[in-house]
Amino acid sequence: MTLDRRHVGKRLSDMVIFTPSPGQRLVYLAGQVPEDGKQDVSTQTKSVLDQIDRLLAEAGTDKRGILSATIYLPNMKDFDAMNRVWEAWVPAGETPARATVEAKLANPEYKIEIQVVAVAG
Amino acid sequence: MTLDRRHVGKRLSDMVIFTPSPGQRLVYLAGQVPEDGKQDVSTQTKSVLDQIDRLLAEAGTDKRGILSATIYLPNMKDFDAMNRVWEAWVPAGETPARATVEAKLANPEYKIEIQVVAVAG
Amino acid sequence: MTLDRRHVGKRLSDMVIFTPSPGQRLVYLAGQVPEDGKQDVSTQTKSVLDQIDRLLAEAGTDKRGILSATIYLPNMKDFDAMNRVWEAWVPAGETPARATVEAKLANPEYKIEIQVVAVAG
Repeated sequence: MTLDRRHVGKRLSDMVIFTPSPGQRLVYLAGQVPEDGKQDVSTQTKSVLDQIDRLLAEAGTDKRGILSATIYLPNMKDFDAMNRVWEAWVPAGETPARATVEAKLANPEYKIEIQVVAVAG
Repeated sequence: MTLDRRHVGKRLSDMVIFTPSPGQRLVYLAGQVPEDGKQDVSTQTKSVLDQIDRLLAEAGTDKRGILSATIYLPNMKDFDAMNRVWEAWVPAGETPARATVEAKLANPEYKIEIQVVAVAG
Repeated sequence: MTLDRRHVGKRLSDMVIFTPSPGQRLVYLAGQVPEDGKQDVSTQTKSVLDQIDRLLAEAGTDKRGILSATIYLPNMKDFDAMNRVWEAWVPAGETPARATVEAKLANPEYKIEIQVVAVAG
């Protein structure tokens, strides 16, 4: 039951990995937020998806391994702009389960936060 | 680590299934929304629960296999009406973990969205 | 695929446990809310974390087994006060993945709700 944690902070770890059986891993990411809150929603979405790519690569998987994503938008008016970036990013034919809801975030500059559960071999 | 995806769209799949060990499957559903946003919250809740029933049946399981449900209501005043439909639907003695929070949804007509994680044998 | 449910109510179970393979368990908690909504956010956060401790102990694990926590705050102004209690509670070097968003809760007195997924040996 040992967990593999990455980018461990005093408040949260960016990634926690559980191995339910040999060769099968469940990867939980912390809610990913943009690197620069001054940018528009498209750039912020790209930034969040880049970070998800990097974390999943570190776990030895990629976006094809995502089981489920929960997307929080402080302003649902950004839904279409977010989706344009999202749809260019997700692999055709291998899209994850997803829910998108409106919710304010801890940093009022952030226009998006995404929480991901994925698998790795 | 191959995932079984159902109802695959360009943005999301309605269901993604992971097999952590032989004969054990984890089923992630996309946030389910009502078929008709013109209806009242009771009818919309029934519609969402019907869709969850159908997806879980397709995975070879049913509502007894639900581990956790996250319910998003754009208006918490609908909590009691939603619960009446929910309580008639969940199996007595086999209720899932659940959280319910207020959050606006992508379609302003929708009065409910439910995200589910379940198991299948 | 039998699930182990604890504190089973007509609406939800406080804890549902899935055994993906022998000796490995995934523990889903219902969204935990404070015992007393009249208290301040620090006391309410302590109350929620106490309940999480008790439920995880009942599953034979503890806060070191938490994979992911989703924290809902009806008022993001409580973020810092919540974090002070949270940071004193999480084990140094073994923090979970986490997301925190603003969302109103079913009981308007409650200042926090936390949803947890954990593992047990």
